[in-house]
Amino acid sequence: MTSFPPRLQKLIRELSRLPSVGERTAGRLAYHLVTNRTLATDLFKAIQDTVEGVSLCERCFFLAESELCSICQDDTRDEALLCVVEKPIDLIAFERMGEFKGYYHVLHGLWSPLRGKTAENLRLGELLIRLKALNLREVVIATGSTVEGDATALYIARLLAEKGVNATRLAQGMPKGAELEYADDITLARAWNGRSSLRG
Amino acid sequence: MTSFPPRLQKLIRELSRLPSVGERTAGRLAYHLVTNRTLATDLFKAIQDTVEGVSLCERCFFLAESELCSICQDDTRDEALLCVVEKPIDLIAFERMGEFKGYYHVLHGLWSPLRGKTAENLRLGELLIRLKALNLREVVIATGSTVEGDATALYIARLLAEKGVNATRLAQGMPKGAELEYADDITLARAWNGRSSLRG
Repeated sequence: MTSFPPRLQKLIRELSRLPSVGERTAGRLAYHLVTNRTLATDLFKAIQDTVEGVSLCERCFFLAESELCSICQDDTRDEALLCVVEKPIDLIAFERMGEFKGYYHVLHGLWSPLRGKTAENLRLGELLIRLKALNLREVVIATGSTVEGDATALYIARLLAEKGVNATRLAQGMPKGAELEYADDITLARAWNGRSSLRG
Repeated sequence: MTSFPPRLQKLIRELSRLPSVGERTAGRLAYHLVTNRTLATDLFKAIQDTVEGVSLCERCFFLAESELCSICQDDTRDEALLCVVEKPIDLIAFERMGEFKGYYHVLHGLWSPLRGKTAENLRLGELLIRLKALNLREVVIATGSTVEGDATALYIARLLAEKGVNATRLAQGMPKGAELEYADDITLARAWNGRSSLRG
């Protein structure tokens, strides 16, 4: 049966390996690439450049073009503060917020044994090694407020407690702009339990 | 403000140029590529191979790894029949069906002046040139049954009529497995008008 040329079939197979790209989407992307040669050329060069020039920071596992990322290279930051995040984009969110001036540690995943994500798949061993070299005032475990985010935070907090390190977690409560009537019960309960006094 | 390394930012920009890939999806894909180097390497090689080795067939504009695609190279097919389709994947669908043994012509788009797709952007000039060389019994205009598919079919049928070529269009009606109560009015009207006699 007539099908696409072999090279295009191979490209579709490779594209299908990307997250949330099915065979149909892969076919559409491949067709777009084969009819837009400039984009295709720019894209393969960008992928090649990234493969050759971007890797994980040896210290915090953020993305870097040298051994250390731009944050770990910056020695003006507060080395007594460490913020643990799930993935690189979360670090960007904190930097955008601009209130945190310590260093980071990127786990590259959440602790989720049922999905095959155990401590060995995360950068947790590396975190414990880093802790020994640092004299930390506080470790903020800034994983998301999902079931897996909560489980990961508890897991890490227990490891840190064994080492005598003070771990904190992001506050949970109402997001800015939220209406009470649409808040789910868990969010509302957490906001209630975490209520703070108003100074008039 | 700290952001991703420049090469990764460039990769995200290039990925965002793909159809239905927004900046957020591009960021996720780029992160996946940077943490899965084997996939990234396989992918850039596959794109490079495609750019270097796949182009449009010089005759029918299907995809090919040489000047002519596998169908145009096959001289056992019926050269008095031509099937006009919008895009390469449509040709694959007809080949899968297996009832058509003529040649194809791929337009690479539909006639849609409001979206800037005029006859010049389609492979229509090439179609008219092909017609001169061929002694055609029938041209099946097999564009989809959308507004633009219908407009394209009418547009081409008019061009073909000027050249005295017999153009046909795919039947429109109820798809296999459809329940009447869920059919839309236009589909039902077309099925009604195209009804055929039953031989018991």
